Amino acid sequence: MKCRKCGTTAVINMRQHRLSLCQECFLEWVPHQVQRTIEKFHMFVPDDRVLGAVSGGKDSLALWDILLSLGYSADGIYIHLGISDGDYCDVSQQKVECFAAARDVRFQVVNVAQEYGQSIPQVARRKRGRSTCGTCGLVKRHIMNQVACDGRYAVLATGHNVDDEAAVLFQNALHWATGYLARQAPVLPASHPRLARKAKPLIRLYEREMAAYALLRGIDYIYDECPYSKGATTLFYKDLLNQLEEKSPGAKQQFYLSFLQARREGRLLPMKSGQVDMSVCQRCGQPTTAPELCAFCRLWD
Amino acid sequence: MKCRKCGTTAVINMRQHRLSLCQECFLEWVPHQVQRTIEKFHMFVPDDRVLGAVSGGKDSLALWDILLSLGYSADGIYIHLGISDGDYCDVSQQKVECFAAARDVRFQVVNVAQEYGQSIPQVARRKRGRSTCGTCGLVKRHIMNQVACDGRYAVLATGHNVDDEAAVLFQNALHWATGYLARQAPVLPASHPRLARKAKPLIRLYEREMAAYALLRGIDYIYDECPYSKGATTLFYKDLLNQLEEKSPGAKQQFYLSFLQARREGRLLPMKSGQVDMSVCQRCGQPTTAPELCAFCRLWD
Repeated sequence: MKCRKCGTTAVINMRQHRLSLCQECFLEWVPHQVQRTIEKFHMFVPDDRVLGAVSGGKDSLALWDILLSLGYSADGIYIHLGISDGDYCDVSQQKVECFAAARDVRFQVVNVAQEYGQSIPQVARRKRGRSTCGTCGLVKRHIMNQVACDGRYAVLATGHNVDDEAAVLFQNALHWATGYLARQAPVLPASHPRLARKAKPLIRLYEREMAAYALLRGIDYIYDECPYSKGATTLFYKDLLNQLEEKSPGAKQQFYLSFLQARREGRLLPMKSGQVDMSVCQRCGQPTTAPELCAFCRLWD
Repeated sequence: MKCRKCGTTAVINMRQHRLSLCQECFLEWVPHQVQRTIEKFHMFVPDDRVLGAVSGGKDSLALWDILLSLGYSADGIYIHLGISDGDYCDVSQQKVECFAAARDVRFQVVNVAQEYGQSIPQVARRKRGRSTCGTCGLVKRHIMNQVACDGRYAVLATGHNVDDEAAVLFQNALHWATGYLARQAPVLPASHPRLARKAKPLIRLYEREMAAYALLRGIDYIYDECPYSKGATTLFYKDLLNQLEEKSPGAKQQFYLSFLQARREGRLLPMKSGQVDMSVCQRCGQPTTAPELCAFCRLWD
């Protein structure tokens, strides 16, 4: 198998793109894809200060690596969730620390238990109506938004790849959750002074490509999935989409990108269906759909 | 396992409805579901003359049986496609003949090869741009429409169950084919004098329920799938949906019915997105989107 660009031996064959590349060309190709995505969706510009949400996993560390290599000014935010099974959070924090130290870049840690008195597993056990993953998502979104706003970053960048986005889209399509369908986007504008702009520069790249990128760049990341993700519905949807991709390479990306296109062209979801009335949380000041306290602040009562 | 209605031994457990029924209650329950569907979607009324599209398979023969037992005046139309592998069409025609003779009901046969000079496999081989299944669908839709219009039937009823509809919806959602999404419906009005009203009274029932109904009613149907359906994409989509249903009973029906609801409420597609400009075929007089001859008439040139 030869590299399509230079003819030397290829290290990866991407059936979905009908493209085989050698290590050197692949490590050029990935950042080029990311740069194209950033430009196409007007995510941010070179002068913008970017805050990368890093978990210690392959996608977020690779994203940070790519943003730095493309010349963007990118700091990191790591949230320690207090998940102690297999030292999950301690190990992933170490991965982020090593990454940042080797590149001499800035990153900030928010330790949920230290900051708010309880870890994610503790607060999830107390709040029986919410799943652990639901609680975790809520807490992470809140803290990332707060750090991005407080630090006056132009944008918060997350490492969602096309597998992640397609799985969420699949879930929302299976339930025809039109409100969620209307709001799922590569870039979300800062529609409120206390709401950070959000961008997902990896949405055109497959999970497998990100794993290969991290490996070939020598990025040391945490291999384990979060211990709470076992049996998660999202993983089941990813499995179904993988079967689809296996049968028809490119189907996953096509599913996601044709959704964005249909919506952009006004063929799907009538205008304004994604709009939600917002008020402001009386405790933290972040926008919320609740009348007094936002869901995050109510967690700790 | 006890029947939820009468307490005797159940013969079927429908996890998706959390309902176990004995033979007698199940054979009452199925027609009741069909009657509710006919009324809810205003498909037809007791005085209407119904034309049932029958293939010799379990769904269409069970539908015919149910319509008759509900007191509707229902004739049948069988289309002989000229598929000779395993005597597929001859055997299925016999099943329809036996069914009709036993109940003394009227049915009409259209033999494609006799009527138009070539069987479906023959014309499909000649038309390389079209798949066999695509050609077959086109021919069947044309003939059924013609027979329904010529016979002045109020409605053409087909045996699509929720598995069929969910698979088509799944395919259209995976490609965000918004034109198709706009037109997939439980009932299609006769929007033109040469376009029959169409209805799908089985859309709330699972394939498994229809198989059980046919079995328990002693309906002799053709078990084999069409030999050309092997490896069909629709079967692959049905398999993915079955995995979903296995994990979450009811998911398939929920997927389909919540789609209808979202669209009805105007949350999914912009108004009028299903409308297509129609002209009339200069040979057969049926509506078409083509400028002169419809796709059916062009098949035979």
